[in-house]
Amino acid sequence: MTNLEDTIIALATPQPVGSNTGAIALIRMSGKGAIAIAQQCFYGKKLSKQPSHTLHFGTIKDEQKQPIDEVLLSVFRAPHSYTGEDAVEISCHASPYIIRSLLDLFTRLGARLAQPGEFTLRAFYHGKMDLTEAEAVADLIASRSKAAHDLAFRQMKGGVSSEIATLREELIHFAGMLELELDFGEEDVEFADRSAFRQMLERVSTRIGHLIKSFALGNAIREGVHTVLAGRPNAGKSTLLNALLQEERAIVSDIPGTTRDTIEEVLDIHGLAFRLIDTAGLREAGDQIEAIGVQRTLEKISTAQILIYVYDQNELSAEDVSRDLEKLCRPGLYLLVVANKKDLCEHALKLPGLPSTLTEENAHEGKAKIISISAHDKEDVRRLADELYHLIVKDESLLESPMLSSLRQLEALRRTEQHLAKAKEGLRQNLTSDLIAWELRQALHHLGEITGEITADDLLDNIFSNFCIGK
Amino acid sequence: MTNLEDTIIALATPQPVGSNTGAIALIRMSGKGAIAIAQQCFYGKKLSKQPSHTLHFGTIKDEQKQPIDEVLLSVFRAPHSYTGEDAVEISCHASPYIIRSLLDLFTRLGARLAQPGEFTLRAFYHGKMDLTEAEAVADLIASRSKAAHDLAFRQMKGGVSSEIATLREELIHFAGMLELELDFGEEDVEFADRSAFRQMLERVSTRIGHLIKSFALGNAIREGVHTVLAGRPNAGKSTLLNALLQEERAIVSDIPGTTRDTIEEVLDIHGLAFRLIDTAGLREAGDQIEAIGVQRTLEKISTAQILIYVYDQNELSAEDVSRDLEKLCRPGLYLLVVANKKDLCEHALKLPGLPSTLTEENAHEGKAKIISISAHDKEDVRRLADELYHLIVKDESLLESPMLSSLRQLEALRRTEQHLAKAKEGLRQNLTSDLIAWELRQALHHLGEITGEITADDLLDNIFSNFCIGK
Repeated sequence: MTNLEDTIIALATPQPVGSNTGAIALIRMSGKGAIAIAQQCFYGKKLSKQPSHTLHFGTIKDEQKQPIDEVLLSVFRAPHSYTGEDAVEISCHASPYIIRSLLDLFTRLGARLAQPGEFTLRAFYHGKMDLTEAEAVADLIASRSKAAHDLAFRQMKGGVSSEIATLREELIHFAGMLELELDFGEEDVEFADRSAFRQMLERVSTRIGHLIKSFALGNAIREGVHTVLAGRPNAGKSTLLNALLQEERAIVSDIPGTTRDTIEEVLDIHGLAFRLIDTAGLREAGDQIEAIGVQRTLEKISTAQILIYVYDQNELSAEDVSRDLEKLCRPGLYLLVVANKKDLCEHALKLPGLPSTLTEENAHEGKAKIISISAHDKEDVRRLADELYHLIVKDESLLESPMLSSLRQLEALRRTEQHLAKAKEGLRQNLTSDLIAWELRQALHHLGEITGEITADDLLDNIFSNFCIGK
Repeated sequence: MTNLEDTIIALATPQPVGSNTGAIALIRMSGKGAIAIAQQCFYGKKLSKQPSHTLHFGTIKDEQKQPIDEVLLSVFRAPHSYTGEDAVEISCHASPYIIRSLLDLFTRLGARLAQPGEFTLRAFYHGKMDLTEAEAVADLIASRSKAAHDLAFRQMKGGVSSEIATLREELIHFAGMLELELDFGEEDVEFADRSAFRQMLERVSTRIGHLIKSFALGNAIREGVHTVLAGRPNAGKSTLLNALLQEERAIVSDIPGTTRDTIEEVLDIHGLAFRLIDTAGLREAGDQIEAIGVQRTLEKISTAQILIYVYDQNELSAEDVSRDLEKLCRPGLYLLVVANKKDLCEHALKLPGLPSTLTEENAHEGKAKIISISAHDKEDVRRLADELYHLIVKDESLLESPMLSSLRQLEALRRTEQHLAKAKEGLRQNLTSDLIAWELRQALHHLGEITGEITADDLLDNIFSNFCIGK
């Protein structure tokens, strides 16, 4: 995949399919031969004489001089293009026949069909962006909510990269001094001030810890927050779901879930996407919640971040609710208990306590909340949406700070953290410089993987194969 | 729809949907305010100073200076754009969120979402193309076969227009002289030489007749040739269909037919699309073909151009075949009788005659053919495909000559022809100049409708509303 010598080509816009047609399709070609290959079939101005960033009207004809289409062709000259290479973009009529004919023609003339992500891979190789920025391009294209878009856009502009670069610099400084000590190994000198070294390690570890913690929010923003709605029959789940969907903008009305039989509703609350999975009501069989219903709901909860448990506060006692929650909750799960049908209450009712499995870990971190509402009441529904949002976004200012959103980056940072911890432990135990230097080198290696300063081909393949073709 | 004062905007590339994503989306804006509106949210170079046909990298930000995307923006200055107006094209990341945000932003800043075909309508109003050329743009985008593409491309380059223009010129010349006679009404002079006039009318009528006749081929090329495959069970229909699909390139494997239960296979034979509808075998109930089977097949045949009737020549007698054909055929239907399973025959069998309903009209025009094949034999399948092709394309040179492909154009030409016929009849009967002049004016009016020299708003609405948005 890392062949940079040939010229690649791809359709960069979505395929026209069925009634999803468009007026225009854009074909993108990049590489040393891009302009010369285009010139072979482009009948209009002489492209070799055109400056970068100019557009030219002309006709593309095949080898038999049969016209394929009238097009607008853009010329980009290295390094002033997306890839950093010479490139042309061809804006043609969005006919499936024309697209196929042009791609066929250009490959006959010497271009090669691009792999997914290959244009961005070339941009990376030519220093136009680092790996976190490249990953953010794919995220930006996939973004469907404001929060996901803003995060990807900041990432694309180097949001995480600059934070990583700062940390890397600090580590490299001390690593360099340690290596120096090794060169003078016999003489037992210390170039790296051990106390300053310890402080630096603490500082860097703390910041890496923050970044690692930011993944939960970053990932929720990027993927949408997986939310399960559960409760007994007639608790008012459907009324609540409909009320939420009416109040907030539904991004899409139905996305097939992980299993084919689940339909997700996606709610946009303050720009954050919540993927809401409704469950069948938990049925009772003689005061016992039916096993199968619980089992199915538990399966859905197992991959969810938030459980919204809804109950009719005129029907269930605080003890009933506690029993249900004990069955449904697991450590780490965010919980919103919704005491519904407030409008039917004659007087304020006692709300249940949070289940003991949750209270210790979650309650004081604000991971579990109880709210009394009437699903019929708009005010309450808005309040509930706010509560949902604030379960995930504790602090609005976090949305602006550097945030991890990729599992790959998270894993590299965790490895960095482990080696830093060992380096700290080594310092504490007064281990020799060579052992500490080794841990530091490992930490730097994993930190470098994040932005791609240190890369392995299989890592790149893995990142860029998730792109769409044409990017 | 004919407001040309405001600035219109639309997504010009297909919507990214599900897994059909792309790297890039193109948003197109045209009108007096296009460049100024873009400047309000484009952070990069000052657009008002940029020459036409240049590309500029920059960031689009909303009113709160929040970045929406980094884009490439193309500047086009009137009249050097598709519409003939000032225009910008914005190449952004193909995220549904970004596309929506940009369209929202531009409409807030003063642009209006375009109606389907409105960009091309403006191109028409600004004299960039006439109506037949504009219609051909939509056909070009919809084209899926080489023949459909080539026809649309020639039409877009004025193929029919120039023919119409020549005819119109001849008519206008004589119409002018007739009008002159009317001005001198009392004096009984004849400016228009009646004999030359008659010859001109003949000449024009003949050419219009050719154009009208060309519609059958033009429409077949544009829409694909509707072909029904019928025959009794075990005639080898499926084997034949599969053999055809393997030999020839299938453009698409399944297109839902006019009724939901029919699946069409589209065959590309020498660049011409054949839309093949398979039918259930015609079952016999005591020597009688089952009524319901026939009924269903007849329904499909009623909108088809070609019937391929397949039978096992070892099983059915010529008389059986004739009886089937009498039931299935209608005047005007092209017929290909396929005597199948030649490989199982011990000696050459007598082929049936063509049904009497067809012979007179069709046989000598080459509209009906009989061919003996073995569906298992590649050679035969290729020969059958050739026969199919030549049923429709009698003369390859016709593919290069001006051809009608739009029903609107056909109707206008038919009206032209009617009025010319009346003018000729008037000349024969020595009617007064004013009556003949009136017929000529009507003929010219309908001829002018074809290219849009004479237009009515409702006509334009009708044409351009069939376009996709963004064109």
